[in-house]
Amino acid sequence: MKKGCPYGTHRVIEPKGVLPQPALKIDNNMEIYDNEILIDVQTLNIDSASFTQIKEEAGGDIEKIKEIMMDIVNTRGKHQNPVTGSGGMLIGRVEKIGPALEGKTNLKVGDKIATLVSLSLTPLRIDEILEVRKDIDQVDIRGKAILFESGIYAVLPDDIPENLALSVLDVAGAPAQTAKLVKPGDTVLVIGGAGKSGMLCLYEAKKRVGVTGKVICLGYSQESIDRVKEANLADYYIKADATNAVEVMEKIKEVTNGEMADITINCVNVPNTEMASILATKDNGLIYFFSMATSFTKAALGAEGVGKDVTMIIGNGYTKGHAEIALQIMRESEELRKIYEELYA
Amino acid sequence: MKKGCPYGTHRVIEPKGVLPQPALKIDNNMEIYDNEILIDVQTLNIDSASFTQIKEEAGGDIEKIKEIMMDIVNTRGKHQNPVTGSGGMLIGRVEKIGPALEGKTNLKVGDKIATLVSLSLTPLRIDEILEVRKDIDQVDIRGKAILFESGIYAVLPDDIPENLALSVLDVAGAPAQTAKLVKPGDTVLVIGGAGKSGMLCLYEAKKRVGVTGKVICLGYSQESIDRVKEANLADYYIKADATNAVEVMEKIKEVTNGEMADITINCVNVPNTEMASILATKDNGLIYFFSMATSFTKAALGAEGVGKDVTMIIGNGYTKGHAEIALQIMRESEELRKIYEELYA
Ligand SMILES: NC(=O)c1ccc[n+]([C@@H]2O[C@H](COP(=O)([O-])OP(=O)(O)OC[C@H]3O[C@@H](n4cnc5c(N)ncnc54)[C@H](OP(=O)(O)O)[C@@H]3O)[C@@H](O)[C@H]2O)c1
Ligand SMILES: NC(=O)c1ccc[n+]([C@@H]2O[C@H](COP(=O)([O-])OP(=O)(O)OC[C@H]3O[C@@H](n4cnc5c(N)ncnc54)[C@H](OP(=O)(O)O)[C@@H]3O)[C@@H](O)[C@H]2O)c1
Repeated sequence: MKKGCPYGTHRVIEPKGVLPQPALKIDNNMEIYDNEILIDVQTLNIDSASFTQIKEEAGGDIEKIKEIMMDIVNTRGKHQNPVTGSGGMLIGRVEKIGPALEGKTNLKVGDKIATLVSLSLTPLRIDEILEVRKDIDQVDIRGKAILFESGIYAVLPDDIPENLALSVLDVAGAPAQTAKLVKPGDTVLVIGGAGKSGMLCLYEAKKRVGVTGKVICLGYSQESIDRVKEANLADYYIKADATNAVEVMEKIKEVTNGEMADITINCVNVPNTEMASILATKDNGLIYFFSMATSFTKAALGAEGVGKDVTMIIGNGYTKGHAEIALQIMRESEELRKIYEELYA
Repeated sequence: MKKGCPYGTHRVIEPKGVLPQPALKIDNNMEIYDNEILIDVQTLNIDSASFTQIKEEAGGDIEKIKEIMMDIVNTRGKHQNPVTGSGGMLIGRVEKIGPALEGKTNLKVGDKIATLVSLSLTPLRIDEILEVRKDIDQVDIRGKAILFESGIYAVLPDDIPENLALSVLDVAGAPAQTAKLVKPGDTVLVIGGAGKSGMLCLYEAKKRVGVTGKVICLGYSQESIDRVKEANLADYYIKADATNAVEVMEKIKEVTNGEMADITINCVNVPNTEMASILATKDNGLIYFFSMATSFTKAALGAEGVGKDVTMIIGNGYTKGHAEIALQIMRESEELRKIYEELYA
């Protein structure tokens, strides 16, 4: 049996020497290397930007959509949209586990998993497209895929419906990082706290700060703030526009008696909120930017411009155990589960 | 005496409610607020992108350059280039210190300082432009400026020539952060280690890792690597292209016996080196991105794509004591001082 690289470089056909993601073509032969996992695929969750492009190109025609998807996989060995560059994720059952992974993984043959690495780097073979669910970007297929040794995944639990689990897993990195960073007694601010990732962060923060800490939810619309209030996820609720740094600073000053936040977690989905995060945080505090709308230079130059000695962390979507931590919240909190089922599942 | 905001929002004329940097016009009246410092300005170091634009607009004519500069300051109350948005820094002597800063600053009237906050947010009045040094982007003036309470600065030392001090101060955040992050026994990789900020990081890392640690310099051109080798700044020297993630991973694997780096410091000046930084670092390791060419999304999605649980830090240009730490290196290391004098002063 052939030995593979943890990152799957052994599958790259063109150009040589790059990683599977930037590669133009990878090998989708389904004979596994010693450190690979073979998956019997059930459903592809196509990335929203990618699926929108495919639907447009196909003029909405289902057969044409199927044709475009088959074509992508035949050309590239993976479902990476050549226009958007993006992938998506998949659901399937473990069919084979490479011997080099023994003792390294707790997966068993037959487990139903969701891959949490992008389809844009996952070797995929589609034998047949069974059903295209146009409105939710899901496509059922008959086919196989390969998970590399470094590829992250989550075992789908029996007690949480599939779509609920998937929407929680999408933002699992945020509450898991919150759990790692927050200490008892901390004052924690979640900007965009009433959103999908923000609510999980609030919940996790409240659990960690204990009775001596404070959790502040900053939201935008009254409607979403009321929802969070009802579920009692924070100690303070602030309605403000996070692109207005001075407004945010003044309001946080008020609820913290001028002390500001020890930890600020940024979960918004709009640009230009770096400065509000910086001014809301105390000197020697920490800012965790989960928002993908964060600009590296705005954060770096912004903190320097106001002489603020804060540690600013780039929100890595992955941290050990992130799937379990996020799914566990759905078991612990009835209120949150209800909100999630209503809004996202 | 009027009370000021630490961030200078009290000086903003238009639009109301924003910070001095994004403001279109700020108040450059030189009567100080209680928490401000008045500076008698000697030299403006105009940001290179800004000065290039001004020179072009002026067709290289000195009198026209002066006119454009006067015009910017008269319109905005600060030297923020309306085309590039950027500023620069200044050198001058402390003339007055607001009473609210007593006990908070160790500045004295008469100290010669360099401001380390951008001219794009610094209230400035130019009474006369004395000399334009076109080739080094410096302009001597008669005029005054205001430093806000949050504004960072460095007292210029007597034992280090001004231009050498300025070029060290430009990258002072990098070695100071290195000093904070590196622990004895660590394996530290500096990508772009043969550059201006990289060499200071190598020096600081070598001091901190002690005899049980390892410092690795990854450089691009043989010429600059040889220079660093001669000064004995690292334990290992690697020549590689940091945009090639797989090449970098293989080479770091080799010199670390497969262990990879505990801490990777990225000091390059080119884009697309996030992935090399991620693959070169061990699980639970730390990456410090000082390079302004870093892309937030490439780092966040890159780490997730390869399932790497690393902490990634946005290089805040400021950390407490950064100016002192960086200048001290020029006193401690004769070799580095010689290189710096030759290359940058
Ligand atoms: N790092 C990763 O791996 C990763 C993974 C997934 C997602 N993300 C990123 O995480 C971010 C949040 O995702 P999500 O799914 O939680 O999004 P979401 O559910 O849409 O939540 C965004 C929240 O931001 C709030 N908001 C919008 N504009 C605001 C403003 N000007 N001031 C204050 N709050 C404002 C919204 O408030 P309203 O409710 O009032 O509209 C909403 O609650 C996105 O940028 C996404 O790209 C990152
Ligand atoms: N965060 C902050 O506050 C702050 C402040 C100042 C500067 N910076 C940033 O820090 C970065 C470095 O600044 P600097 O003044 O140290 O720059 P520099 O002196 O030009 O050094 C850059 C180094 O990167 C190396 N390099 C270039 N391309 C490479 C490649 N493909 N592979 C490997 N190495 C490569 C160069 O190697 P050669 O020597 O062989 O050409 C050079 O040694 C810049 O991005 C700058 O914007 C940040």
